Amino acid sequence: MTALENLIQTLSRLPGIGVKSASRLAYHLIKTEKSYNQNLAQAIATIQERVFPCSECGSFTETDPCPVCGDPSRDRSQLCVVEQPQDVVTLQSSGAYNGLYHVLGGAISPLDGIGPEHLSFAKLIKRIEKGSFSELIIATNPTEEGDTTALYIRHILKEHPELSITRLASGLPIGGDLEYADRITLARSMRGRVRF
Amino acid sequence: MTALENLIQTLSRLPGIGVKSASRLAYHLIKTEKSYNQNLAQAIATIQERVFPCSECGSFTETDPCPVCGDPSRDRSQLCVVEQPQDVVTLQSSGAYNGLYHVLGGAISPLDGIGPEHLSFAKLIKRIEKGSFSELIIATNPTEEGDTTALYIRHILKEHPELSITRLASGLPIGGDLEYADRITLARSMRGRVRF
Repeated sequence: MTALENLIQTLSRLPGIGVKSASRLAYHLIKTEKSYNQNLAQAIATIQERVFPCSECGSFTETDPCPVCGDPSRDRSQLCVVEQPQDVVTLQSSGAYNGLYHVLGGAISPLDGIGPEHLSFAKLIKRIEKGSFSELIIATNPTEEGDTTALYIRHILKEHPELSITRLASGLPIGGDLEYADRITLARSMRGRVRF
Repeated sequence: MTALENLIQTLSRLPGIGVKSASRLAYHLIKTEKSYNQNLAQAIATIQERVFPCSECGSFTETDPCPVCGDPSRDRSQLCVVEQPQDVVTLQSSGAYNGLYHVLGGAISPLDGIGPEHLSFAKLIKRIEKGSFSELIIATNPTEEGDTTALYIRHILKEHPELSITRLASGLPIGGDLEYADRITLARSMRGRVRF
């Protein structure tokens, strides 16, 4: 295999990059400034040494605890449970939440062989027993796996009636169009309609 | 800037990769096997040392001359002129051509400041004078820049009447649908209709 074929094949193993895109990227890398390639190679080679899961919430961080867990100004009575580390970044960028996070590491998905034992539920319970949370916000994805995971969380927390359990609202995305909404989203937004 | 932000920003400078895709790729790279990242980093860091333009045709190669120019079984009476090195790979994969190639390095585009002096026309003339070509196939893109470049090639070769100059056919893409064809393609395929 030539160096070019090897680069294309390696790039095409990245998610969302097919052989055509990989080939386009490879030709770009041949022609771009050498310093860019060196910087990119260095960034890829060292990312796993620099970034690791926060020992408290499980989101990716370069300091332990992560900046969110270590921030004294955050509301320590709210805990938001998400599937993936990147969900923390997404929710943070919304600016609508000032509490703490808990990253499960995925969602329950029997078809993919992911059961509760693969996710950080034990740690979640421990954090709730040690902490002083009054609200737990479930922010798993609005998918079958996310729904199953949400139900499971409610189930394992039934011995904590002091905790108010909520879930992110489902409905029409802002800026969306009724015409393009799928039936399930439409049905959910109708059932979950709010007083105006 | 954190290592993660740096990786996302560096990835997002690649063509066709926006900040969202870059972020998705970065999170994938944090979680994937370490050996994959090392291989990818190595492939990116060394690609420019391994791959260079062929001294004859200008396509990217790892040996000089490139496998096509060095292949004694190819027809040395045909020369196909393309814009970019990757166009050689694309045409080779069609299996419809067994002659030699000439890579211009782009197309004439006054708006982008690319004039004939930036492309390898001088070398093209030299090759034609030294070689024994009987046909020159213009395979520039069917765009305004490609059309301009094709006209320019015909102009500079008017002192070579021994050379039959042809151009790739334009028309409806195979597997396409009349309904989805754009007006210009449709007009070209009508004007260029062939006896059936």
